Amino acid sequence: MINVKDAGKRAKMASRSIMLCHEEQKNEALRLIADALLAHSDEIIEENKKDIENARERGMKESLIDRLMLNGGRIKALAESVIEITRLEDPIGEVVEEWERPNGLTLKKIRVPMGVIGIIYEARPNVTVDAAVLCLKAGSSALLRGGSDAINSNKCLVKVIKEALGKTEISPDAVMLCEDTARESAVEMMKMNEYLDVLIPRGGAGLIRSVVENATVPVIETGTGNCHIYVDESADIEMAKNILINAKTQRTGVCNAAETLLVNKNIASVFLPVAKEALSEKGCRILGCERTREIIECEEATDKDFATEFLDLIISVKVVENVEEAIEHIERYSTHHSEAIITENGENAKKFLREVNSAAVYHNASTRFTDGGEFGFGAEMGISTQKLHARGPMGLKEITSYKFVVEGNGQVR
Amino acid sequence: MINVKDAGKRAKMASRSIMLCHEEQKNEALRLIADALLAHSDEIIEENKKDIENARERGMKESLIDRLMLNGGRIKALAESVIEITRLEDPIGEVVEEWERPNGLTLKKIRVPMGVIGIIYEARPNVTVDAAVLCLKAGSSALLRGGSDAINSNKCLVKVIKEALGKTEISPDAVMLCEDTARESAVEMMKMNEYLDVLIPRGGAGLIRSVVENATVPVIETGTGNCHIYVDESADIEMAKNILINAKTQRTGVCNAAETLLVNKNIASVFLPVAKEALSEKGCRILGCERTREIIECEEATDKDFATEFLDLIISVKVVENVEEAIEHIERYSTHHSEAIITENGENAKKFLREVNSAAVYHNASTRFTDGGEFGFGAEMGISTQKLHARGPMGLKEITSYKFVVEGNGQVR
Repeated sequence: MINVKDAGKRAKMASRSIMLCHEEQKNEALRLIADALLAHSDEIIEENKKDIENARERGMKESLIDRLMLNGGRIKALAESVIEITRLEDPIGEVVEEWERPNGLTLKKIRVPMGVIGIIYEARPNVTVDAAVLCLKAGSSALLRGGSDAINSNKCLVKVIKEALGKTEISPDAVMLCEDTARESAVEMMKMNEYLDVLIPRGGAGLIRSVVENATVPVIETGTGNCHIYVDESADIEMAKNILINAKTQRTGVCNAAETLLVNKNIASVFLPVAKEALSEKGCRILGCERTREIIECEEATDKDFATEFLDLIISVKVVENVEEAIEHIERYSTHHSEAIITENGENAKKFLREVNSAAVYHNASTRFTDGGEFGFGAEMGISTQKLHARGPMGLKEITSYKFVVEGNGQVR
Repeated sequence: MINVKDAGKRAKMASRSIMLCHEEQKNEALRLIADALLAHSDEIIEENKKDIENARERGMKESLIDRLMLNGGRIKALAESVIEITRLEDPIGEVVEEWERPNGLTLKKIRVPMGVIGIIYEARPNVTVDAAVLCLKAGSSALLRGGSDAINSNKCLVKVIKEALGKTEISPDAVMLCEDTARESAVEMMKMNEYLDVLIPRGGAGLIRSVVENATVPVIETGTGNCHIYVDESADIEMAKNILINAKTQRTGVCNAAETLLVNKNIASVFLPVAKEALSEKGCRILGCERTREIIECEEATDKDFATEFLDLIISVKVVENVEEAIEHIERYSTHHSEAIITENGENAKKFLREVNSAAVYHNASTRFTDGGEFGFGAEMGISTQKLHARGPMGLKEITSYKFVVEGNGQVR
């Protein structure tokens, strides 16, 4: 079994082979990985079945088993997404800025790979392929640590990836899996500053909290989204209804789904009945504040509800005085992921977009667009909810660093 | 006494008042701070004298006392540096990127303040003013925690800054000092994720290690620099000597000073005697590898010496086969701060600049230029030695974040 320290050391050693690769070498490696996934489809499904059997024995919920499951169609989709990434522009080597100093020194700020990117995730084997391939395209080694529930699938997927890398100039060690799935190994990984340049947790709130609390390696916090839709007094009712239903119900288990509806008091008596009907049609429970309950019948919302990311068909609703109170509420309860204002009033929109301190702020659009694909990044490593390094959806650029190249002719201070 | 939690809470509350300020409001506040520093010069010097007396009683070294000391000239220089920062372009509100999606959504990536920036530093009261003013100009609150040795100076400086802010629309709480200088309060600060968006340690290796190990707040690691000068076989001897002497001896206690000289074997017999004479003239001790000691007389360098940031008039010297071995040595021993190649060979320069994985890489110039002022950033919050968020010198832009502003006309997924 490859322990986490060995895996880290090998990923670090290999990072130089991938760091200096040209775009075409990386794309060729990705194409070989896609081919290998398809060629080893049966073997991957076999190993995945072991994980599913074990999970069933342990009584895992069917919804989680569905996320764990790989079949022919899913492996094909995975291979296709790898090919998609070959089409994205290589971020490495880009001259971000270039200038000259009065003393004649020329400076270039150049985009370079991170080095080794660690990813800690749960029982979703597709993340193994997604994350590995994004790291490779961004010129970095990947140190992967998936959940124990997916260990057989992950081992097989990484074996297949390494086999493909074996045919290239990139070291197969550029993708390493920590096969030790004990909790201790995760904590050890979080402290491997000598081998890891950044650590990205992808998973539920518990995982992310554990990483933030334990890591000494720089972390990009991802995920939790207590997102708000504010329907201003001048909102187009039909538009507001469509955006609300989309943001709340199109997919409930995702971080960019809405969890709270804020409604301006001057439109509440018109909008809330419309909202209630549409939400109820989708089977969505409504928890309302006192003023909401004066207009529509619903359960009572507590303070705690306003702070909760339901990830379910439940929404909390509050009637507010004006855009200022909406902003206040958001600043108090939001996880600062994504918030939207629905309004025909340009001044209120401007105020909301400026003052709401979240990764993505929307005017007349659904919060569900906070996504690497929807933003046009072509791929996504996760959605950052911190302000350091990357904020919001992270594509290839967001998992790179930069360095300064300075050229002179003998300058000294 | 204001404890760290209260200080953090107040800085967070105040961050909205500064976040939304326009450039001119911030510059006006900075001018008032500069005025107040000059107006309260005597009082600041009085309080600083208490710190110096206490430090002398505790037997502090004179070189450290010099860094602690404020006098009329230094306060004037401090006030002038505040005025300098008013002249820098406001980074906030800059539209970094702007694009449209096929569905008609328009996206803007806009530079926004961090929120609250924590700075942990040692007994240099000038950092109190520098850091506070940089944070304000970058639209963030500052939570300052200086060393106990400077507590009287820091309290007085922050009082003066707050008095100036009291005359503006910015809350005086936008600059908070943690007056509790017990070790526990520093550790508590490192875990205040609810109040702090980022933590920047400024000081020696011990302080930085403690922050990296204890912090749950995102950290920007700064400082340690084991920097290298590689003299290639085609180097201009005179230029190489000048750069070496500048990088090693102009100021020894700084992170961008050179600590190791690498010399190509084909130029060693010519360059090493020249280097020795020039270094000895400056009183610099030389620790050489075996091959070095065959050419010049000097002490023996151990493996540990090559890994040491001397911050003193000491240099380790190694003769290498070629540019590849120089790069290997640097990758093994460097802290990846700043490294220089001195060569007339364009191919070797290109190879070195591309393959050396440090924040700043130089061709024919001194490593001493790795500095916010020298890079033209106008000011500096520190020099990052990590790859996340900021790398190398950090100016105003490097202490900001961004958000996405998305505008639509009813788009849903």
